[in-house]
Amino acid sequence: MNEITRTTPYVYTFANGQAAGRASERDLLGGKGANLAEMTNLGIPVPAGFTLSTEVCAHYSDVTEKHGAGAPERFPDGLNGEIDDAIAVVEQATGRDFGSTTEPLLLSVRSGAAVSMPGMMDTVLNLGLNPETVEGLALGTGNPRFAWDSYRRFIQMYGNVVLGIEGAKFEHALTAAMQSAGVERDADLSEAALRDVVQNFLALARQATGTDFPMDPREQLNGSIEAVLRSWNNNRAKVYRRLNKIHGLRGTAVNVQAMVFGNTGDQSGTGVCFTRDPATGERKPYGEFLTNAQGEDVVAGVRTPQPLDELDAAHPQAAKELYAVMERLERHYSEMQDMEFTVEDGQLFLLQTRTGKRTASAALRIAVEMVDEGLLTADEALGRVDAAQLEQLLHPTFDPNAEPTLLGKGLNASPGSAAGRVALTPARAEELSDAGDDVILVRLETSPEDLSGMAKSKGFLTAHGGKTSHAAVVARQMGKVCVSGCSVLTIDEAAGTFSIGGRTMTEGDEISLDGSVGEIYAGSVPTVDASLPPQFKTLMKWADERRRMAVRVNADTPEECKQAIAFGAEGIGLCRTEHMFFDASRILNMRRMILASSEEERRAALDKLAPEQRKDFVGIFEVMDGKPCNIRLLDPPLHEFLPHEAEGQAEVAAALGVDLLTLQHRLQVLHESNPMLGHRGCRLGVTYPEIYEMQGRAIMEAACEVAARGITVLPEIMVPLIADVNELSFLRVRLERVAQAVIAESNTSVDYKIGTMIEVPRAALTAGDIAKEADFFSFGTNDLTQMGFGFSRDDAGGFLVPYLEKGMLPLDPFEVLDFVGIGRLMRIATEEGRATKPGLKVGICGETGGEPKSIAFCEELGLDYVSCSTYRIPGARLAAAQAAMR
Amino acid sequence: MNEITRTTPYVYTFANGQAAGRASERDLLGGKGANLAEMTNLGIPVPAGFTLSTEVCAHYSDVTEKHGAGAPERFPDGLNGEIDDAIAVVEQATGRDFGSTTEPLLLSVRSGAAVSMPGMMDTVLNLGLNPETVEGLALGTGNPRFAWDSYRRFIQMYGNVVLGIEGAKFEHALTAAMQSAGVERDADLSEAALRDVVQNFLALARQATGTDFPMDPREQLNGSIEAVLRSWNNNRAKVYRRLNKIHGLRGTAVNVQAMVFGNTGDQSGTGVCFTRDPATGERKPYGEFLTNAQGEDVVAGVRTPQPLDELDAAHPQAAKELYAVMERLERHYSEMQDMEFTVEDGQLFLLQTRTGKRTASAALRIAVEMVDEGLLTADEALGRVDAAQLEQLLHPTFDPNAEPTLLGKGLNASPGSAAGRVALTPARAEELSDAGDDVILVRLETSPEDLSGMAKSKGFLTAHGGKTSHAAVVARQMGKVCVSGCSVLTIDEAAGTFSIGGRTMTEGDEISLDGSVGEIYAGSVPTVDASLPPQFKTLMKWADERRRMAVRVNADTPEECKQAIAFGAEGIGLCRTEHMFFDASRILNMRRMILASSEEERRAALDKLAPEQRKDFVGIFEVMDGKPCNIRLLDPPLHEFLPHEAEGQAEVAAALGVDLLTLQHRLQVLHESNPMLGHRGCRLGVTYPEIYEMQGRAIMEAACEVAARGITVLPEIMVPLIADVNELSFLRVRLERVAQAVIAESNTSVDYKIGTMIEVPRAALTAGDIAKEADFFSFGTNDLTQMGFGFSRDDAGGFLVPYLEKGMLPLDPFEVLDFVGIGRLMRIATEEGRATKPGLKVGICGETGGEPKSIAFCEELGLDYVSCSTYRIPGARLAAAQAAMR
Repeated sequence: MNEITRTTPYVYTFANGQAAGRASERDLLGGKGANLAEMTNLGIPVPAGFTLSTEVCAHYSDVTEKHGAGAPERFPDGLNGEIDDAIAVVEQATGRDFGSTTEPLLLSVRSGAAVSMPGMMDTVLNLGLNPETVEGLALGTGNPRFAWDSYRRFIQMYGNVVLGIEGAKFEHALTAAMQSAGVERDADLSEAALRDVVQNFLALARQATGTDFPMDPREQLNGSIEAVLRSWNNNRAKVYRRLNKIHGLRGTAVNVQAMVFGNTGDQSGTGVCFTRDPATGERKPYGEFLTNAQGEDVVAGVRTPQPLDELDAAHPQAAKELYAVMERLERHYSEMQDMEFTVEDGQLFLLQTRTGKRTASAALRIAVEMVDEGLLTADEALGRVDAAQLEQLLHPTFDPNAEPTLLGKGLNASPGSAAGRVALTPARAEELSDAGDDVILVRLETSPEDLSGMAKSKGFLTAHGGKTSHAAVVARQMGKVCVSGCSVLTIDEAAGTFSIGGRTMTEGDEISLDGSVGEIYAGSVPTVDASLPPQFKTLMKWADERRRMAVRVNADTPEECKQAIAFGAEGIGLCRTEHMFFDASRILNMRRMILASSEEERRAALDKLAPEQRKDFVGIFEVMDGKPCNIRLLDPPLHEFLPHEAEGQAEVAAALGVDLLTLQHRLQVLHESNPMLGHRGCRLGVTYPEIYEMQGRAIMEAACEVAARGITVLPEIMVPLIADVNELSFLRVRLERVAQAVIAESNTSVDYKIGTMIEVPRAALTAGDIAKEADFFSFGTNDLTQMGFGFSRDDAGGFLVPYLEKGMLPLDPFEVLDFVGIGRLMRIATEEGRATKPGLKVGICGETGGEPKSIAFCEELGLDYVSCSTYRIPGARLAAAQAAMR
Repeated sequence: MNEITRTTPYVYTFANGQAAGRASERDLLGGKGANLAEMTNLGIPVPAGFTLSTEVCAHYSDVTEKHGAGAPERFPDGLNGEIDDAIAVVEQATGRDFGSTTEPLLLSVRSGAAVSMPGMMDTVLNLGLNPETVEGLALGTGNPRFAWDSYRRFIQMYGNVVLGIEGAKFEHALTAAMQSAGVERDADLSEAALRDVVQNFLALARQATGTDFPMDPREQLNGSIEAVLRSWNNNRAKVYRRLNKIHGLRGTAVNVQAMVFGNTGDQSGTGVCFTRDPATGERKPYGEFLTNAQGEDVVAGVRTPQPLDELDAAHPQAAKELYAVMERLERHYSEMQDMEFTVEDGQLFLLQTRTGKRTASAALRIAVEMVDEGLLTADEALGRVDAAQLEQLLHPTFDPNAEPTLLGKGLNASPGSAAGRVALTPARAEELSDAGDDVILVRLETSPEDLSGMAKSKGFLTAHGGKTSHAAVVARQMGKVCVSGCSVLTIDEAAGTFSIGGRTMTEGDEISLDGSVGEIYAGSVPTVDASLPPQFKTLMKWADERRRMAVRVNADTPEECKQAIAFGAEGIGLCRTEHMFFDASRILNMRRMILASSEEERRAALDKLAPEQRKDFVGIFEVMDGKPCNIRLLDPPLHEFLPHEAEGQAEVAAALGVDLLTLQHRLQVLHESNPMLGHRGCRLGVTYPEIYEMQGRAIMEAACEVAARGITVLPEIMVPLIADVNELSFLRVRLERVAQAVIAESNTSVDYKIGTMIEVPRAALTAGDIAKEADFFSFGTNDLTQMGFGFSRDDAGGFLVPYLEKGMLPLDPFEVLDFVGIGRLMRIATEEGRATKPGLKVGICGETGGEPKSIAFCEELGLDYVSCSTYRIPGARLAAAQAAMR
């Protein structure tokens, strides 16, 4: 041992019912290693072994990144000595010697990070075999064929994983041997044939690498350990971590264990099992096994495994033991377990136990039933359900028995499954829908002009735009399916054709979208409706009892509000008034307003819009009785309301009675290089105060009208895009004046509030001033993220995906709040806003308001509520409860 | 007096050589009031009076804004009592009584804020007259005609200013009286005629207001005081404050003084004088006067005043006294004074003294000569020159004797004067210039594609874009004239015509631009060259001795660098590499690089660009010998390098040997909704590392080549648009690798640095992390302001001008750094960056880096340097010195 002082050793043994590690040490030992240690301490039969901690991997990654792959110091000082000591412990526990020519100890080397990444990293089995030890194994087991088969498997695995030799080369050599032996399965090769295969494999390795295949078991072990360490940063693993939002880990642990064999004969076998049914959550052992097989055989699917309930018959003693272990481990962990086991000559060994993955529906059932069973408290049960997964339960899904043809992939922008005939224009979508067809709207990208056609479609597929593009946001709000950013989609609108991944189709053809995974299928894949398990209500009740933050909905219509209330919404966090203007009956007056050349003309057009706006709000206030309604005043730039193509322009010019040139000139004036940062939001309100005055009046008139009927109306008028307190005070004075006037006219009392979005970085930085004029703040994290990062969400496709792939960013900040940067702005705004006005109501209405990690951050900041789209409300209620209990 | 405790009274008297105020109390008493007090205390003859402090105005504005114009509590409690007391003091000093029918005291009421706002607020003279006191005045002066003329003037002024009666009504009545009397000038009206005029005026006032004209002098006084207070917030005053960037003032003071009369006969007169020539700075009394006249007559210009050196002859005793007062006041204030005086029956009275406005050239001369004269220290002298004004001296200006026809106005985007023939396209600009013409490029807006045509033009006029639009930024950098955002400009490129303010002209016609004020003139206005006064060098030397911050230049070519060094630049703060790619010989390879469909193709195109880039840097490094050169890697989105019109696209497609469809498809893919927030800056570097690697190599190869010749090269490689430290560490590793390789190849040692712009809000918020990977920070305040405010500078025209007019923002944040919001981000970044890396070099290279107030803020933050365009360098050196001395 070297002389460097360390607080933790690198190597943790588990053998003879004693382990140096604990289940709680996943960060250090990885999930697999920590649980192997725990099982050993519990006296459960686990093959003896040891775990190299994640520190080793961190050191390895660090040194090889800095000094290259072959850097001599890539193993930390002292590690080899610790491994030697650990091998000695395993030898003692198993009674076998590593490298022995009589009773050789064989080892497995497996990865195991703190978070499970199944199949992403490398494994080496049967390690320790060479021309001498293989004879020892043959002798010890009395089964030379088994010994030589194991050796052949080892060379193949080590050659591929450690030496980087193409797997197909070994497969070819094996196939050649089978042909020359005249057998169909490798299991039918004789010992002699296998001896030849081994010689061929060794020659093949020598040829591929230029050196002899390593014979020294200790050298084999170090090579295998290094291969596992290296595999932490292979491409597959990196992509997996990105897709599964796994970050902040130091690396993988490496688990070295004495081999046990499920393939020594019919008294042996191997299998996987769950303590409950992972699909339904039903409480009964679930799983499958193969007799006379190794673990890979189960995974490879060459032979069809038997269901677990046949284990009794095949291996009665082992089955009895296994059921006892399952029961014991589930009670020990108070959690459904997913286990791997091997039966070697009738003796049961557990190779792994971990928390079992499950469907959302199973998660609900298990959590609630475990409380009934006394295994969990309700508090704990709430922590066992993934809040993000809940949304899956609410949307219809494709029939799991369908086997559709995949056309291509895009971003999973709005979950659920939808099938229908393709429309390439919103107008066509309306026609098809009116004719009774289900419609999928396929566009390069959508814009607010498309809204009426979108409303008539089941789902949207777009070529551009990310998960927070217009199409995505609208889809989530409307509860529709959306696959966005499908880069293999091209559209020829004129020809009425489109192509996905090179396959050209015609408008009217059927396609299907799976918005939960971002996949596009040919034809109409049948869907099945969502059915909520009975435990849903119980869990939601527990969540509601425990959460501190309210949950509101982002909704613009009475229908959306009704659905949201059914899902548990306690108010509207964001009602976007601009969507209301795209209706065919209104867009003309909206356009008249925009094209007005004087305040007078503008007021005249606004006067025509006012009664329509009032009607919108009446409908919403009726539904929301007693719940606060946050209504955002006009936000998008005016040119969004004008047609972009010459044809549409001519139509509008005619309808408005202006000449095309005038219209085009106005469009030219309204054109902006960066509309996101342009003349929109409260900037419209300041330059054309009459617009917000009309909206304020419509809101208050509707509120008074509904209130007069005995319904409780709580309007919150929200001014968007404030960058400076002066904007808000300017507008507040005018809105107050209108509100007071309406209240006086109608002789009704309505408790209204006036507040602002915090969505511009400077607003967050000057929130202490802004709070003087605001009754509430609502974080618009979409814009705050866009401006804070300088990322246009419509354009981020080109760099955001590479960024996530290269690990520039751990997560998409439009999906999960960026705590460090954007979160800092939110913290400044919340703290300084409340310093000015204690008790200031603060909420969030951006896309991240429905995302569990972001909700946890909002709880930490002490926000009063989160707001999200309809289908994310149950998940948000659960996430808020989980956050409150932390 | 009421019983409320106050720390300061509202009213400050000055009379009998004793004043309650001091010159230093401008904030409280306004400039005029403070100096009247000071002169009184100095024993200089000032008509007795008193000043209502700015507190009164603050109270008045506050109450009337909240409770309306007529709110009874709009005068603070106790004010009337204090006014009564003050009137008694003035009565005692003058020996006259207010309202007396024998020797009536008449008063003037004038505004006077802490910062001079000449002519913006209201004044009432001759106050205290009514049918009885007018007789007393007639008796006392022995001049009834004068008394009735004064009365008529009072009614007219009070009626207009206080009662809001249209001035023309009085003028009409006066004209009628002159006609009926058969005289041409009102001075020729007899006493009797004036008595009639007074009756008519009183009747007219009654008719207009519905009540009798106030007769009570005390009521007249309160009415006049209120009118002055009200005028603080009249539109004219607000616009003046905005244009002159005056903000943070509490209001105007009100100065009430005993009237003295310059119009009692030929032994009286009135005038204005400067202690030095405000145009040249020459040390000699300068001014003009009118005999037998009131102050308004000098201003109105009805009679032509006499030059001051004729005062000796006209009023010998008063002249002697005046020269003595001028000398005394200049010495007392150590500053050139601008004074108003009245001679009443041979007796001199001073009505005002203030710091005299002067040209930049005069300011320089006065400051330096006053040091020679022992009036000022060099430190003080530096504070006397307006750093922003210095730039004027460096640019040519229009001949002041020309009287050109104004066509319209735009924004004063880049100072100086230019005349030439109009080109509507960059190509045409090049043709005209090559043919020997001076050219003015007239465009809706410019883009980097236009650069070569811009380089051949004298000035740019654009319809869109603000002071930080592309045209403006390029103009300031190139030292060209620019008027941007000219909303009355329309262009018909096809017809080859353009129109300004409705006047249509043809390409090739001559126009002239005054970029200092934003004016456009017809024809070619002759210009005169800039000539620097000899004091320039002295002052700059003093400034350089005192400043702490270095001053660098934003420059892209060796020529610009040479000019900048002549102006005192100590390094390059920003060299934009993208400008170098627009050259006709390179753009094709740039386009090839952009259109590459693989990394290989991209590298091939980059390989062709590399030697050209290297050449650019060689030229710059040679010029900058020993001075640091900060070079920013490619920043703009790639589509800026591709043509936007179909015609240009066809050409490019042909030149590149790709088909038009491929080109257009690539353009479609590159299209961005918000390019400002799109795929640009380091995002290009991360997604296509080979681009930055080529640039890094070109920089280092050039550096090594030049260094090998014994020239000191200090390259600073700057990565733009960093939002997260991961981007910088990813790029830094690659740049370091290239740099080390080049150094090794060339066997030369070059001390290079790698750092980053801080221009994304999130970069500022996470600067503590970013500093780990950065050798320096440079604030890109243009982008930081755009993203921090959410203002696209290209689109801000539509709302920024109304915002400034409505006072939403005190200043244009693209011109003067927004200390509160953007400055806070800079403070966070500086403090946290240096906490991570003490001594981290921090500078600024945004547009505000050349603006004096912003420079003062940078000094406060402790930045190491500021960087600005060439012509702003001397001003920046001065501003840095001024800031360091604060």
